[in-house]
Amino acid sequence: MNLAIIGATGNVGRKTIEVLEKSSIKIDNLFLVASAKSAGQKLTFNKKNFIVEEIEKFDFSKAEITIFAAGSQIAKDWIPKAKKKTIVIDNSKYFRMDKDVPLVVAEVNPEELKKHKNVIANPNCSTMQLVLVLKPLHDQYRIKRVVVSTYQAVSGAGKEPMDELFMQTKDYLDGKKIKSKNFTKQIAFNLIPHIDSFVEDGYTKEEWKMENETKKILSEKINLTATCVRVPVKTSHSESVNIEFENEFDLKKIREILDRSPGCKVVDEQKDGGYITPIEAEGDNLTFISRIRKDNSNNKALNIWIVSDNLLKGAALNTIQIAEILQKK
Amino acid sequence: MNLAIIGATGNVGRKTIEVLEKSSIKIDNLFLVASAKSAGQKLTFNKKNFIVEEIEKFDFSKAEITIFAAGSQIAKDWIPKAKKKTIVIDNSKYFRMDKDVPLVVAEVNPEELKKHKNVIANPNCSTMQLVLVLKPLHDQYRIKRVVVSTYQAVSGAGKEPMDELFMQTKDYLDGKKIKSKNFTKQIAFNLIPHIDSFVEDGYTKEEWKMENETKKILSEKINLTATCVRVPVKTSHSESVNIEFENEFDLKKIREILDRSPGCKVVDEQKDGGYITPIEAEGDNLTFISRIRKDNSNNKALNIWIVSDNLLKGAALNTIQIAEILQKK
Repeated sequence: MNLAIIGATGNVGRKTIEVLEKSSIKIDNLFLVASAKSAGQKLTFNKKNFIVEEIEKFDFSKAEITIFAAGSQIAKDWIPKAKKKTIVIDNSKYFRMDKDVPLVVAEVNPEELKKHKNVIANPNCSTMQLVLVLKPLHDQYRIKRVVVSTYQAVSGAGKEPMDELFMQTKDYLDGKKIKSKNFTKQIAFNLIPHIDSFVEDGYTKEEWKMENETKKILSEKINLTATCVRVPVKTSHSESVNIEFENEFDLKKIREILDRSPGCKVVDEQKDGGYITPIEAEGDNLTFISRIRKDNSNNKALNIWIVSDNLLKGAALNTIQIAEILQKK
Repeated sequence: MNLAIIGATGNVGRKTIEVLEKSSIKIDNLFLVASAKSAGQKLTFNKKNFIVEEIEKFDFSKAEITIFAAGSQIAKDWIPKAKKKTIVIDNSKYFRMDKDVPLVVAEVNPEELKKHKNVIANPNCSTMQLVLVLKPLHDQYRIKRVVVSTYQAVSGAGKEPMDELFMQTKDYLDGKKIKSKNFTKQIAFNLIPHIDSFVEDGYTKEEWKMENETKKILSEKINLTATCVRVPVKTSHSESVNIEFENEFDLKKIREILDRSPGCKVVDEQKDGGYITPIEAEGDNLTFISRIRKDNSNNKALNIWIVSDNLLKGAALNTIQIAEILQKK
């Protein structure tokens, strides 16, 4: 297979190359592409050096599959042209709610891939790890309502915001004045209850995405409300999730279902240290579930804690999994 | 008034002295008391030096009111003796659920103070800021159920855990191996979904406290479920709160109610930066409310973001407010 990665020098682009190295996809030719600003950089794939090409000069017909690991603007500008020559798997939010574009989590709704018209969308990182866990539970007990609060790592915002966390942290420890450029407020030793832009009714786009992407992927009948918060963590998004079912459930069975569910792992000893934290999930393909408890305020509800590497399952890994499925077909 | 502070050298003790300096309480004699380990230290109050006395040698009859700003063990060991000679306001969890001990938030249920038998309990920091916000809403619309996820600062765990965050952060930036002593796992650039000890059904004591203290303070009818998470923030606890009412509500009225409610301030511009973050609430007596939104998953529910300095309203300030009310009587 000939494969191109657009936005190859960014956080998700670099991670995509890493995941590709370990994947089952046999690559004939790989094209690493980025904006003019980043073109010319050297990147390695399977110990071979690659010069990053400029998107303006790239011929999309060279690749059967092109992964866009860039932002919404690049997706908007380039995918309409690219899709005439290559199958696009897009990480950005731009095409996700388009009715002609399947929104696919590899383990959850791979059957949607059949419907693609050369563009497939990768869900938002915070949605991805959530629906991976919700799906098997919804199949068994029918989910009625989900209340989720997120604790999202800075790497999800990009490389510069990630660097800003460390710069600010260093300046804070050195007693220097803190400068915020990529975030609206200080992120070092702080929290920002705001991710992506504000939309209607006081919600942010990130919260809107969780609500609407979950509906598109799982079921329009799932009611979901989200509060999305940026935390001073480098990698891995965490989510505190309250799930209300249509039906009564068995907690032991929930554990069993989750533990055997593809891509999921239960870590829940209910004692000191017997749960997952973001740094422990970093670099792991799995989505971890801890703190599984019956909700005393509603006998059809439970609480769980979900953690996953936002650059892996939340982004790069899922696009490569989609490419793998496409190649097998 | 003669007033004693037990645990004067700790995070909450020091903050209590600061708040006392600014309060309306007229102090005749102040006694600063701590364990043998900390006795002999010098502290200042209104620019006067005080030598910290040892609790073993302290005569509680010297003080009309004694604030215990120490842990559960000190409360258990000393309050049964102390209450025979002084009115105790205790910050620890030890007596909070005792039916003979009023659990008081100054703005919420001061009338409970009439029932005291020389011991008054200060609620847990995460409960305090929550009930301050829930009370006026409950009065207006009757609260049915609350789902809360917390983002709690390290200073709530004490001075050593607070220092550990900064030590670990420095070691991380210097590429050194991280050591965890006060927390079960690394807290620098990480999150720990576990505060206080594990109790039954997989909950932690912190979560149990939020559920049960809220019931004791506001109403047994309020169902609450909590997930409590430690975050790498120095001061101020944040809470993502979903509130379901018995009755339909008006969002504009909710804002008005909260903004005129004592101890509360609404900061909610629904645009970039138009919300409160923990560092901004640090050092402030007020509890801030942001991100007020109708919940699309339930038409009788809303989402809010609450932030308050956990050492001030969450601890020291409330004990001093209680002492003020007692003095006026």
